[in-house]
Amino acid sequence: MKAHLLTIGDEILIGQIVDTNSAWMSRQLNLIGISVNGKSSVGDTRTDIIAGIEHALGLADIVLITGGLGPTKDDITKKTLADMFGSGMSFHQETFDRISAYFQKVGRPMPPSMRDQATLPDQALILINKVGTAAGMWFERDGKVLVSLPGVPFEMEYLMTNEVLPRLKNKFVARPIVHRTLLTAGEGESAIARRLEDFEEALPDYIKLAYLPALGQVRLRLTGVWPGEILADSEAVLTAEVEKYTVVLRNTIEDLVFGTETQTLQGVVGEKLRALKRTLATAESCTGGYISHLITSEAGASDFFVGSAVTYSNEMKIQLLGVNPATIANFGAVSEETVREMAEGTVKNLGSDLAIAVSGIAGPAGGTTEKPVGTVWISVSNGNRTLASKFVFGRDRGKNIQMAGVYALNMLNKFLDQ
Amino acid sequence: MKAHLLTIGDEILIGQIVDTNSAWMSRQLNLIGISVNGKSSVGDTRTDIIAGIEHALGLADIVLITGGLGPTKDDITKKTLADMFGSGMSFHQETFDRISAYFQKVGRPMPPSMRDQATLPDQALILINKVGTAAGMWFERDGKVLVSLPGVPFEMEYLMTNEVLPRLKNKFVARPIVHRTLLTAGEGESAIARRLEDFEEALPDYIKLAYLPALGQVRLRLTGVWPGEILADSEAVLTAEVEKYTVVLRNTIEDLVFGTETQTLQGVVGEKLRALKRTLATAESCTGGYISHLITSEAGASDFFVGSAVTYSNEMKIQLLGVNPATIANFGAVSEETVREMAEGTVKNLGSDLAIAVSGIAGPAGGTTEKPVGTVWISVSNGNRTLASKFVFGRDRGKNIQMAGVYALNMLNKFLDQ
Repeated sequence: MKAHLLTIGDEILIGQIVDTNSAWMSRQLNLIGISVNGKSSVGDTRTDIIAGIEHALGLADIVLITGGLGPTKDDITKKTLADMFGSGMSFHQETFDRISAYFQKVGRPMPPSMRDQATLPDQALILINKVGTAAGMWFERDGKVLVSLPGVPFEMEYLMTNEVLPRLKNKFVARPIVHRTLLTAGEGESAIARRLEDFEEALPDYIKLAYLPALGQVRLRLTGVWPGEILADSEAVLTAEVEKYTVVLRNTIEDLVFGTETQTLQGVVGEKLRALKRTLATAESCTGGYISHLITSEAGASDFFVGSAVTYSNEMKIQLLGVNPATIANFGAVSEETVREMAEGTVKNLGSDLAIAVSGIAGPAGGTTEKPVGTVWISVSNGNRTLASKFVFGRDRGKNIQMAGVYALNMLNKFLDQ
Repeated sequence: MKAHLLTIGDEILIGQIVDTNSAWMSRQLNLIGISVNGKSSVGDTRTDIIAGIEHALGLADIVLITGGLGPTKDDITKKTLADMFGSGMSFHQETFDRISAYFQKVGRPMPPSMRDQATLPDQALILINKVGTAAGMWFERDGKVLVSLPGVPFEMEYLMTNEVLPRLKNKFVARPIVHRTLLTAGEGESAIARRLEDFEEALPDYIKLAYLPALGQVRLRLTGVWPGEILADSEAVLTAEVEKYTVVLRNTIEDLVFGTETQTLQGVVGEKLRALKRTLATAESCTGGYISHLITSEAGASDFFVGSAVTYSNEMKIQLLGVNPATIANFGAVSEETVREMAEGTVKNLGSDLAIAVSGIAGPAGGTTEKPVGTVWISVSNGNRTLASKFVFGRDRGKNIQMAGVYALNMLNKFLDQ
């Protein structure tokens, strides 16, 4: 079954916003076995919208439209859709009541334009948007489905998850599909692929392995598609099969796996620290507060995170962390000796149970033959036991900072397991 | 003149990568007066590529293609393009020599597939890619232009900037266009628009003002398009006109403007600190190291930035910054009194000339009726003079952290001017 994604709106065409919706939608559709065979964007004029929709309906059985539904310009999109599907427009009381309730709740007067937001095509199945004012609309014609959704990402995601994907799955996808994802850090895609050659060889035809790489991390997703006749227990049998292979996969690269599904490295570390009732602090030189920012980006970090000393200057390393000036003079700020003293000094001076310390050369300047740009020392300590490792990343400042963040959290995660 | 942007490649269709190229390309094309009237994505099969190109050529005079040129799969795209434009394929010595030199320089053996990378359509003007192995290709047919570019962002940007945009400007854009951009922080788009009503009214027809908003910041871009007969000095005359209005614009909202063109708030602050030979440290509670991360994301931050105390816990505020425990007990960690002591304590204890301090409730938990989620106190101090202000942002944790970062840097920027 093929889908086409169409965005409506000048803000995409002038490059004011990057379209992140369609990548998210593609991934969600793939997960239920629907593939996207094309995407397109048109401006918000009637002519362009009609041409865009006709083009999309010519290419696919399912057309998902985002955008063109804001309170200032939804008339064109809705009216065009109504005309194309031979539908009148009616006032939709349920939608109006929901919008009224929303404005009442936030204590703001409802703008008159909201009456238009509740005027919708008769022929459409209205998809109730509980997180915004623009409703979704589901049309059918000649066995094809066209759905119009608001362009605001969290409204689109709400409607896709709660209204669109379940309906599409029911209508178009009879075959059970099961996914399991393992999250790894610390190795690249090709190195992992070499270790998984035998595993991939042994997979049955109906289970596939996908590599989904990000900076310093690779997600490994097993997808099983039920191959035979569909019986009452097919989904359960398939789930058991996929989970069996997930266990084998995990055992094959146990040292690289830090989590499953939608977890994050900082989230996994946080959960462990919470369970152990241990606190954490960081001492950051080249990462400049990025690790601390990652940790505190997740709600509830204050349960275990006491803070960070971003010691960009040598004086700060000495003063806040108690690093011995002679250590920096003899070995340099980017050295095993300094980073170990930073980690141990963090536990001692900042009073945390555990510490991460990082010192490196993010670039573009500051590199030498011996210590090129990208050289980063990372240490983890609990005051009694201290580990330190050197990494050499690349030449890009931003990527070096991000890679150091991932590797540092990964080192702490392993440290907590030992 | 209208352009269509076409991406080729399954990685876009399965949602593995977000297409950031096309937003960047749209903005660059707009700057030279070419508007994008559509975008589309197709998979990397011959049939899809042909259908995608024919569709695009039917809609626009300029078609810019990205992707489908990697060493493993460029055959299809290049061969399809050659066939569509009735062209043979030839070995392109210059491209091959350039690729060989690249592999020699990085000390890696050249894979055999690189011979294919240098085999290119005869009918295309080859655009030399100095930052990668895939060449760009420029085709013309019936007055229309079709350009194929690699999908790797920095390679595409290199070829657009150095080869494609100058040629498009020459071929399609006779009329001089001049842009000037002012950067503002601290006010929303609609509040600024109210202050600029008279200014906008007074603008001549051939100069337009665009609002380009981001979180906590709005860029204001004046674009002049030469309206009359084109003479030798038209561009100079237009430039002088646009600059005259840029001065008026700046004077109208002087208090909001922090920079011009491609500057950043942290970059502007950094330049001032460098010029003044003053150092900076930050004390961050709810921002959790984000401000420090912003500052150290730019190369050369070590010239002025000594570091940060991310004091997530009250103990850390007391211990590292010397905040009086009674202040926290009496007024709370999120209060004018505490944030002032944090800023002054940073100058004193971390030894910097200037300090930013932030304490707030990022959410989603921790809010009260008196201090709802989004309440943030920000202070700036040089040890003698200390300013503090309260802001109430929204309910989203991530946005609150980002907004606090922008407002804190903005407060320091103004402080440095006083």
